[in-house]
Amino acid sequence: MEYNKWIADLENGDEIEGFYILKTAQIKTSNSGKPFLAAAAADRSGVIDAKIWDYGGPLGPQDEGTVVKLRGAVSEYRGTLQLIISRIRPAQEDDRYSLGDLVPTAPIDAEAGWQELLALAESIRDPDYRAVCRSVLDRNSDRFRMLPGGKSMHHSFVNGLLMHTLYMARAADYLAGLYADIIDRDLLLAGTILHDVAKCREFVTSPLGLVTEYSIPGELLGHLVMGAQAVAEEAKDLGVPEEKSLLLQHMLLSHHRDPEFGAAVRPMCAEAELLSLIDLLDSRMEIYKEALEETEPGRFSKRVFALDKKIFRHR
Amino acid sequence: MEYNKWIADLENGDEIEGFYILKTAQIKTSNSGKPFLAAAAADRSGVIDAKIWDYGGPLGPQDEGTVVKLRGAVSEYRGTLQLIISRIRPAQEDDRYSLGDLVPTAPIDAEAGWQELLALAESIRDPDYRAVCRSVLDRNSDRFRMLPGGKSMHHSFVNGLLMHTLYMARAADYLAGLYADIIDRDLLLAGTILHDVAKCREFVTSPLGLVTEYSIPGELLGHLVMGAQAVAEEAKDLGVPEEKSLLLQHMLLSHHRDPEFGAAVRPMCAEAELLSLIDLLDSRMEIYKEALEETEPGRFSKRVFALDKKIFRHR
Amino acid sequence: MEYNKWIADLENGDEIEGFYILKTAQIKTSNSGKPFLAAAAADRSGVIDAKIWDYGGPLGPQDEGTVVKLRGAVSEYRGTLQLIISRIRPAQEDDRYSLGDLVPTAPIDAEAGWQELLALAESIRDPDYRAVCRSVLDRNSDRFRMLPGGKSMHHSFVNGLLMHTLYMARAADYLAGLYADIIDRDLLLAGTILHDVAKCREFVTSPLGLVTEYSIPGELLGHLVMGAQAVAEEAKDLGVPEEKSLLLQHMLLSHHRDPEFGAAVRPMCAEAELLSLIDLLDSRMEIYKEALEETEPGRFSKRVFALDKKIFRHR
Amino acid sequence: MEYNKWIADLENGDEIEGFYILKTAQIKTSNSGKPFLAAAAADRSGVIDAKIWDYGGPLGPQDEGTVVKLRGAVSEYRGTLQLIISRIRPAQEDDRYSLGDLVPTAPIDAEAGWQELLALAESIRDPDYRAVCRSVLDRNSDRFRMLPGGKSMHHSFVNGLLMHTLYMARAADYLAGLYADIIDRDLLLAGTILHDVAKCREFVTSPLGLVTEYSIPGELLGHLVMGAQAVAEEAKDLGVPEEKSLLLQHMLLSHHRDPEFGAAVRPMCAEAELLSLIDLLDSRMEIYKEALEETEPGRFSKRVFALDKKIFRHR
Amino acid sequence: MEYNKWIADLENGDEIEGFYILKTAQIKTSNSGKPFLAAAAADRSGVIDAKIWDYGGPLGPQDEGTVVKLRGAVSEYRGTLQLIISRIRPAQEDDRYSLGDLVPTAPIDAEAGWQELLALAESIRDPDYRAVCRSVLDRNSDRFRMLPGGKSMHHSFVNGLLMHTLYMARAADYLAGLYADIIDRDLLLAGTILHDVAKCREFVTSPLGLVTEYSIPGELLGHLVMGAQAVAEEAKDLGVPEEKSLLLQHMLLSHHRDPEFGAAVRPMCAEAELLSLIDLLDSRMEIYKEALEETEPGRFSKRVFALDKKIFRHR
Amino acid sequence: MEYNKWIADLENGDEIEGFYILKTAQIKTSNSGKPFLAAAAADRSGVIDAKIWDYGGPLGPQDEGTVVKLRGAVSEYRGTLQLIISRIRPAQEDDRYSLGDLVPTAPIDAEAGWQELLALAESIRDPDYRAVCRSVLDRNSDRFRMLPGGKSMHHSFVNGLLMHTLYMARAADYLAGLYADIIDRDLLLAGTILHDVAKCREFVTSPLGLVTEYSIPGELLGHLVMGAQAVAEEAKDLGVPEEKSLLLQHMLLSHHRDPEFGAAVRPMCAEAELLSLIDLLDSRMEIYKEALEETEPGRFSKRVFALDKKIFRHR
Repeated sequence: MEYNKWIADLENGDEIEGFYILKTAQIKTSNSGKPFLAAAAADRSGVIDAKIWDYGGPLGPQDEGTVVKLRGAVSEYRGTLQLIISRIRPAQEDDRYSLGDLVPTAPIDAEAGWQELLALAESIRDPDYRAVCRSVLDRNSDRFRMLPGGKSMHHSFVNGLLMHTLYMARAADYLAGLYADIIDRDLLLAGTILHDVAKCREFVTSPLGLVTEYSIPGELLGHLVMGAQAVAEEAKDLGVPEEKSLLLQHMLLSHHRDPEFGAAVRPMCAEAELLSLIDLLDSRMEIYKEALEETEPGRFSKRVFALDKKIFRHR
Repeated sequence: MEYNKWIADLENGDEIEGFYILKTAQIKTSNSGKPFLAAAAADRSGVIDAKIWDYGGPLGPQDEGTVVKLRGAVSEYRGTLQLIISRIRPAQEDDRYSLGDLVPTAPIDAEAGWQELLALAESIRDPDYRAVCRSVLDRNSDRFRMLPGGKSMHHSFVNGLLMHTLYMARAADYLAGLYADIIDRDLLLAGTILHDVAKCREFVTSPLGLVTEYSIPGELLGHLVMGAQAVAEEAKDLGVPEEKSLLLQHMLLSHHRDPEFGAAVRPMCAEAELLSLIDLLDSRMEIYKEALEETEPGRFSKRVFALDKKIFRHR
Repeated sequence: MEYNKWIADLENGDEIEGFYILKTAQIKTSNSGKPFLAAAAADRSGVIDAKIWDYGGPLGPQDEGTVVKLRGAVSEYRGTLQLIISRIRPAQEDDRYSLGDLVPTAPIDAEAGWQELLALAESIRDPDYRAVCRSVLDRNSDRFRMLPGGKSMHHSFVNGLLMHTLYMARAADYLAGLYADIIDRDLLLAGTILHDVAKCREFVTSPLGLVTEYSIPGELLGHLVMGAQAVAEEAKDLGVPEEKSLLLQHMLLSHHRDPEFGAAVRPMCAEAELLSLIDLLDSRMEIYKEALEETEPGRFSKRVFALDKKIFRHR
Repeated sequence: MEYNKWIADLENGDEIEGFYILKTAQIKTSNSGKPFLAAAAADRSGVIDAKIWDYGGPLGPQDEGTVVKLRGAVSEYRGTLQLIISRIRPAQEDDRYSLGDLVPTAPIDAEAGWQELLALAESIRDPDYRAVCRSVLDRNSDRFRMLPGGKSMHHSFVNGLLMHTLYMARAADYLAGLYADIIDRDLLLAGTILHDVAKCREFVTSPLGLVTEYSIPGELLGHLVMGAQAVAEEAKDLGVPEEKSLLLQHMLLSHHRDPEFGAAVRPMCAEAELLSLIDLLDSRMEIYKEALEETEPGRFSKRVFALDKKIFRHR
Repeated sequence: MEYNKWIADLENGDEIEGFYILKTAQIKTSNSGKPFLAAAAADRSGVIDAKIWDYGGPLGPQDEGTVVKLRGAVSEYRGTLQLIISRIRPAQEDDRYSLGDLVPTAPIDAEAGWQELLALAESIRDPDYRAVCRSVLDRNSDRFRMLPGGKSMHHSFVNGLLMHTLYMARAADYLAGLYADIIDRDLLLAGTILHDVAKCREFVTSPLGLVTEYSIPGELLGHLVMGAQAVAEEAKDLGVPEEKSLLLQHMLLSHHRDPEFGAAVRPMCAEAELLSLIDLLDSRMEIYKEALEETEPGRFSKRVFALDKKIFRHR
Repeated sequence: MEYNKWIADLENGDEIEGFYILKTAQIKTSNSGKPFLAAAAADRSGVIDAKIWDYGGPLGPQDEGTVVKLRGAVSEYRGTLQLIISRIRPAQEDDRYSLGDLVPTAPIDAEAGWQELLALAESIRDPDYRAVCRSVLDRNSDRFRMLPGGKSMHHSFVNGLLMHTLYMARAADYLAGLYADIIDRDLLLAGTILHDVAKCREFVTSPLGLVTEYSIPGELLGHLVMGAQAVAEEAKDLGVPEEKSLLLQHMLLSHHRDPEFGAAVRPMCAEAELLSLIDLLDSRMEIYKEALEETEPGRFSKRVFALDKKIFRHR
């Protein structure tokens, strides 16, 4: 009996026990008329088909996406592995398991990344931009650190929003130096750090922290407008001068670059233009990364939906 | 000597005195080396070239767009009328003249129109939507009643915003009845009445009330986002339920219909869709009206910029 | 035994008899090698899976879309209801059943609607436009009153074309008053009433009155061009002055607004512009209505094909 | 004194007399206060600036585009030639001059071209298509032979429509052979010969035969729809079977290929597709020809409006 | 027993033996737990489902797309024919069968077509263009003659590239005469003959000669750029003057007409424009041909992917 | 008398002598009938209108864009300064003046920038990429260092290409580290350094080093294709493996990102994607810089052609 063995490492004949995500769960009827559970078990390494014979509940479709403790044996059926489960129960509050082992998580040290992002926020010299950054991050810190960057396009894993924002802030820091004659580093950094913060309100997340859908305000207003409103309120409360508040709101409203990609207004100052380019750049690099991971060296990928083209993984 | 004669009615030989707009004013040098003022005088009926010989000031380019009192004689030069001015001075506070005679003004009874619009707002049964409407109109009433609907595309005359909003509210009232099974009249009317209210902040106006340019917040945020922010604040102060506030904000954010025409989000409820169509409809009808006025019956207009086509005035 | 019970009201255990549409019908072979009929029975309230065991005909795929009389019992299989048919035969000429109960039909009183539309046509003061309207309606009256408005996008039910035209004519009547200074009510109403009349020639309909496909002239010419030709001929026969005929033809040719949406020419007079907007408006409202009916309050719909977006049903 | 000398051949010092087109004509006032005529004289070889000193009429702007008889002397002013006119009068009915010398005319033998086109029409084997071709050509023959192909884009010279149609018919004849397995030569030829025939009704022409503007039916219906109507009527009168009439109408309605280029419907049969391509091909070749004539070998042209690019004339 | 009977001609009860393509091949498990081969056999006339009971190998998925010799009996299963195979083995080197019977092949006499194309190349009078043509054809002759014109859009059969090039060269020859005043026949013919020659490097082909995918250089550079490079090198080696080399490269780089269809530059000389139109024309005609073959007379096709529309096959 | 005073510093009454660019030069005739030269003199600081009275040559339009030595006096005419020239002659070979003072030049230390770029090239670890970089730079070094980055859009000053390439290489160096898990720094740097090198062949430059037009190969092939050809040849000569050569060619061919912006192929590997983004980013920042320099703080610019929008210069 092996405990919490990675699903990607399972082999025919393994007997296992541990905590996994019940990814799908359907009660079906066998040819002999008996109910059984056709399910799938997952951890962050992969997914395996699973069955419980003679099982009519209590677990079922309503438990999809939750953590269960299970015991079972791995066998092979028509060329693929399956897990025949002998015991299963929902995870309980006092169970000890690592959520990070179960759901896909950003490949960064989240705590260190968060501290680095805070330090970048503190490095803003303009007291007004710094204060808005601090306050908005404060209000959203827990959710902001955990949230994925999106539902499926890129960074759709726990801590993805933090990772995306951090990489962008690093690039902003460097490029503010390269184009120092026209870029106000403080404005650029503040805009970069806050640009997606309203995703905290835009996304609905599952108990495991993944994005399942968009909230009603997320659909009706969008995270650009909600972010600008949050900045406007915070700036008003902090007594930030009007023009600074406007510029920061403009950064958020325009960071999707083009109205056809969701920008409420087009970027009109150098920092807004640069922010929109850094956002494009970081999201593109992550999309490539995720697509290249599934492509053999020397081969082309399948068509990548988010790029509308296939890409090449050179050696 | 005739007083305040319409410029459109001037004839060769007229001697006139009255208040006009100094539309343009340039100090030039004649062939004989003497300064003279090459100007244009305007009222709402039209424009006439004007000259003051041997004149070096004090009036000049800095006074363009202001009201002056002048006396002069109409003569003909190379086939067109011109006004040779003998006296001119800026209008003063205690001068009595009608601004409505000088600047283009909406062809409606502004006071009656305003009362009709208020009555439509009061006819909203939902107390929350009605309260937001009242408050936002209250805060902006003076400016809202006077403002043009735009800079040049359509309704670009004093009271134009009021006229545009009123016609749309009438259409909204009718169509809410025609499609009563899916349209919430209260939401539609509230959205219609408030949809352009943030133009009060978006436009910079001349002393005569015409739009000269866009304000900085107008450019950086746009009247859609500013309107939604105003609604959000008002709704919060009034204790309006979240979903109603969201819907009303959504109406304003989406009323330009398509991101390529400036919508921050696309319309997602029936009332937002209908509002965007009523806005399109009323602006189209006004563009046609203004273009048809300059076209002979049985002829095609020149290409109308706002329509990107020429149009036909049938008999 | 219940007669003609609504399919939407069927429950496990019901025994029924009545007339239904045989929506689909396939002869299959059971595991035991015997033929059976896998079918679906429908009325305007819904659809139910149906089976006839040990049945090899005579009914089969060639009878899909016709009316049958059947008797059967409702049972439950893997969580869904199914109808086990014990007797079935084609409906015959002397059978008495209501077609309106079987096929989806516009939610209007068709006769009253038709009279209202005729009255609107009679209210046209210009004798030429009125005469063309009368004649064209006369020639197409039977088919025009029954026809759906389309194949699947919106108004795709019996009497749908009448309903669509009627609602548009009402809106045209109102808006002709609101924009009376530029709109010729007679031209607008005539164009509105006739705009889709050539769908009578464009659509191929099933015996039950639904659109199954487009006719050859429908595909090769389109209803815009065919409608304009019909108007041209009628106007010629009636001695209508050339310019009126041209304007009316132009209304029909341009009512899809933009060449990319099928307009043969772009609208060039105010009435054509307004007609195209009323058409857009009525079709949008109906699409929303049909999509909202399938959406829970407080939820978003699935992506609506005809709108290329999902929509929100607020409470 | 030289008579009817080509304008392109004029030199400083020439004294000339003859018939020319008064291309432009404006009455201006000289520095000394006297009126003079600033004009331009043209023949098919070119244009020259012209002046009549101390001239206040009767000729003026209202005579632009007409033929005049004039006498004058060529001189040089600031590096360009100008014609100082000493006598001028309108051409009269009994004046003898060659219109072909004055207006640009297609570089083909118009009579031979017309006969060749008729022969191609007669080579159609299908009696129905041949009969429609004959009748429609018959009704329009005078105007069809003289008309330019357009207002300014290409073939905008006398006989241009004939030349364009002839070249296309030759290409159609060849390509019908190359793709004989899918192309019905009769349908293709008939469609090609008739595709632009309604330009006879679409264009308004000057007395000299050039296109000055579009007619009201030309704007409101377009030559595609008018051509299809003409074919439909002719086919009906001749008893042509419905499907043939539809196909021929479809050829005309779709020959602009794409709705965004004015097609009322998209080509749906092989002959319509091919016709639209032959039309594109012949117009492109003529646009190149006209642009290359104004370009030096080894140089690029200016941006060619009709191509939205510049082109290269190789050696 | 019939030998190499066309698959399209098979009937229930036939016993056959011969060479076919093993189009698909999967090892499955029957209800009784025994392995069997579910396969498809094909020749150029069609495809048939095939089974080998109690068969676990050696043939399997790895042999898809190869030629096999098989023996079997045709029976009917649920309304469709299937082939029950009793013997099967891979084709061997000394087997005698006609590849042309097995794979789809262009409906031309390939040898005669090749000679005609060579003759057209030899008819180029300019020694430089002729020499480049000769050399490039020489280097690619074997592969060029056999290659399909593409993977699936059109001409995707053996000898397809030759057929496509030959038809285009014929059209080029004719049109160079029709537009002789602006078209350099030598440049046009050379460009036409070579325009797709780099498909020899762009395509990866199966042993049977069909295109299975694009090569790495094919994806990263494209056949336009590779073709231009090949011409540049050849021209350099042959001492062709720079401008001629540039023009020929330009022909190849621009023959897709518009950047959105893959052109590296837009056509800028008349020959390049014409080449791009001939390419469009020939590919369109072939797409129509292939779609019409699958459509009944008097009916519309399904939506043709390469045309994004359905088409009509008239009688 | 002041020597080589900056034109931007000239004041009414100055007497100057020095070397300037004769930016425009036209011989005109005064009212009194005498010839005079209406010219403009320029240095890198600005431009001033200039006149030489009673001057008929030898300098004239043919000398526009060359360096002249002149002496003159500054006066004011109708509110603007003008330079009345008393002596003027072409600059001669032995004149001593600084070209850098006369033509706009990149605001970088060109020699230091060049050394930094060479060092970045030398930092490439892969010997193949490094060798190609070295060789191509070597062949183009003189022209590459001096050339502007373009004709007018951005970096259109001497050393502009170097500056653009250098800034991009710095950004590439940084971003290769940030995305080290998917970016091959060697390929990215090589592609970045060489991406625009074929502008050396694409641009035609004036004697002063500014771009006056595009060369024939520049127009017919474009710098993307020419750059790829240069890399292909160099790689072949140096024995670089095929895949590396392909990748580097692909970088150059795709660096305009989208076919509609001139890319011959779309970027298909992460380095090509990143290069295209860095190019976009650096050109955008320079366009902003140049536009902001002409805009007052707190104001919006005029519409910037290269951005198709106006931009805001915040305080």
